[in-house]
Amino acid sequence: MMKKMTLAACALVVAGSAFALEPDKAIQFRQAGYSFMSWNMNTIKNNVEGTYNQAQVIAAANSIAAIANSGMGALYVPGSEKDVGNVKTTVKPEFFSKPQDAAKVAQAFNREANELAKVAATGNAAAVKAQFGKVGAACKACHDDFRIKRN
Amino acid sequence: MMKKMTLAACALVVAGSAFALEPDKAIQFRQAGYSFMSWNMNTIKNNVEGTYNQAQVIAAANSIAAIANSGMGALYVPGSEKDVGNVKTTVKPEFFSKPQDAAKVAQAFNREANELAKVAATGNAAAVKAQFGKVGAACKACHDDFRIKRN
Repeated sequence: MMKKMTLAACALVVAGSAFALEPDKAIQFRQAGYSFMSWNMNTIKNNVEGTYNQAQVIAAANSIAAIANSGMGALYVPGSEKDVGNVKTTVKPEFFSKPQDAAKVAQAFNREANELAKVAATGNAAAVKAQFGKVGAACKACHDDFRIKRN
Repeated sequence: MMKKMTLAACALVVAGSAFALEPDKAIQFRQAGYSFMSWNMNTIKNNVEGTYNQAQVIAAANSIAAIANSGMGALYVPGSEKDVGNVKTTVKPEFFSKPQDAAKVAQAFNREANELAKVAATGNAAAVKAQFGKVGAACKACHDDFRIKRN
């Protein structure tokens, strides 16, 4: 099993054990990261669909990329695969049982997020719009496979 | 009044009106930002007090700086100065009634957070520890003035 794991999947496991958080705290911190990224995605959406403010787009894209690069794998500690009291999670069991697949979508998301930060720096609104779509698709790919649909 | 406002305070007001969010959403997004920064602060604390992992510290410091730079002033929309239904806020009224003072502590925090990202890149654990202390003090300065104490 370990032999078959990618380096990234191993890193996920190692990071997860480095400074283990209580499962409920881990769930809340990872949700905070995703929530803050979604606000920044919304900011970029408003810019590419409305008046384009380069500084705002750069700041939002940098924020998404930095959060993506922050090692959120460490927030999937044992015990955080299910609700902890009032702290609910929508992660699917597959995120934990298929670490290679989880690492793959996480890496794909990080690549697209880092590319968006690069593209944002050039200030070309059309290019940002195109790359923004790729980041959104990477978000969706993970949600489809690893997030329980909310009603 | 407007004449006396600093440029940053004006920017805060302008940003707040750009893509106005529902007050409850604005409260949740800003809390997500602060929460995610606190996780990264904790990561850096663990590193400077324990085994120092440069890559982890760089990633955490970059995340804090990027969130600090993301224009969170836009999340203090009218109506978000008080609880909205079940969405509670601990912001003090002074954050809204003294925008110059709020801008001052926000700018001070951003300066220290950006400096931490710079220092982290050098990889000197002692320097990171010192600058980490300054960021923590900047967090506290804002909490002291603008956050209601939680029990």
